[in-house]
Amino acid sequence: MNPISIFPLTGIPLIQPGDDLPRILGDAVERLDSRLQSGDVLVIAQKIVSKAEGRYIDLDRITPSPYAIEIAQQCQKDPRLIEVILSESTEVVRVRSGLIITRHRLGFVSANAGVDRSNVAPDGIDRVLLLPIDPDRSAAHIRSAVRDRFGIDVGVIIADSHGRPHRMGTVGVAIGLSGLPGVEDWRGRKDLFGYTLQHTEVGVADQIAGAGTLLLGQAAEAIPAVIVRGVSFEKRDGTAQEINRPKEMDLFQ
Amino acid sequence: MNPISIFPLTGIPLIQPGDDLPRILGDAVERLDSRLQSGDVLVIAQKIVSKAEGRYIDLDRITPSPYAIEIAQQCQKDPRLIEVILSESTEVVRVRSGLIITRHRLGFVSANAGVDRSNVAPDGIDRVLLLPIDPDRSAAHIRSAVRDRFGIDVGVIIADSHGRPHRMGTVGVAIGLSGLPGVEDWRGRKDLFGYTLQHTEVGVADQIAGAGTLLLGQAAEAIPAVIVRGVSFEKRDGTAQEINRPKEMDLFQ
Repeated sequence: MNPISIFPLTGIPLIQPGDDLPRILGDAVERLDSRLQSGDVLVIAQKIVSKAEGRYIDLDRITPSPYAIEIAQQCQKDPRLIEVILSESTEVVRVRSGLIITRHRLGFVSANAGVDRSNVAPDGIDRVLLLPIDPDRSAAHIRSAVRDRFGIDVGVIIADSHGRPHRMGTVGVAIGLSGLPGVEDWRGRKDLFGYTLQHTEVGVADQIAGAGTLLLGQAAEAIPAVIVRGVSFEKRDGTAQEINRPKEMDLFQ
Repeated sequence: MNPISIFPLTGIPLIQPGDDLPRILGDAVERLDSRLQSGDVLVIAQKIVSKAEGRYIDLDRITPSPYAIEIAQQCQKDPRLIEVILSESTEVVRVRSGLIITRHRLGFVSANAGVDRSNVAPDGIDRVLLLPIDPDRSAAHIRSAVRDRFGIDVGVIIADSHGRPHRMGTVGVAIGLSGLPGVEDWRGRKDLFGYTLQHTEVGVADQIAGAGTLLLGQAAEAIPAVIVRGVSFEKRDGTAQEINRPKEMDLFQ
């Protein structure tokens, strides 16, 4: 059984709106000591994808709705920020002091709809960074560029860190992906004694995202992408959408 | 920045009740090509710890209570199995056809209280395998044995796979640990621009457990333990208990 290795893509500059991220990532791949391999998974921090896509919003240009103002009072946050969060959400799941949990338009449940007020440039403008428009498409675009440049088909994951019900601490999850499954279906697989496995759906993309996030960290923008090598997964082109548990199937609540 | 590597401990036999698991794991460490290093994390599948501890229950010896029979009707499972699940739980969170979610006596929320009917020996006895009595203590015991034998202080994680609210697919999580934090507190850490980080508590042990589980797989008992090398974490001796989100702080529901 081969080991898994996770290594950083280095030398990636601070990303600006309009930057050609596939080219920049490809340049970083060229700097690697080892050659890209089929089955490698490129795990990319959501933030640089958002930045390249120019997903900034100046809060000064936002006029909060009465509903946003009401929610902002409940969670004691900037009403303009809440307006932006609501605009990225399909449902408010929970509001309390300091916290808003929503269902994002991309289908997952997270804090602040992924709207990030930290880690954006200090030019005095009060702005926030939204998630990429369509992270699955962003991942597919990067995968395609890597294939064109290197002739290697890799998996690509756009990773973000999410808090979780029941458990403390954020973990990396896949909010966009291409070239690998989001969830693997192990139904029918048997264990050593021929018993059917108890866990039949495995969150392979989230586990890879979490593994990559161990190295990505969250403070060091200098390492916003890593390669995860050696994971065996089904050759199936999934989406991050398939990881979202349909609301009517939510079993833990 | 160093890479992370995850490699298997090989040659571990099928574990039987009473087996000296620390010795067996130590023997597997001796077979490694590379020497153990300080900061390595030994990720061990819960199942072999449970087996070594003899955590089997013969269902034929279980008499279900009226409450267990009622729950069993709701989820269409064996009332004796439900009795065992309830005995391992402090609270029933959700019951529906084919599914029971409880808060385990160890504090986390999971399906079936970790009671496993698959992957136990085919000797005709209808038995199930419970989680280890005290996985944090099991982890500490293994860590101590490794330190005594190799003079190296490693982290130890007892990993299980859990389903999740909102997201499809199981992921590896830490249900016991020693020699590393369950959750890292990043409060006060700043990003490149001096902004305070948005995510202040990071589920480092769960991310390592998930990374290890990528290699552990769930079918191959032949690889029930792996080494995760190269993760930087606080030198703090945490517990899996600290990962459990207190019920009154559960923010996503």
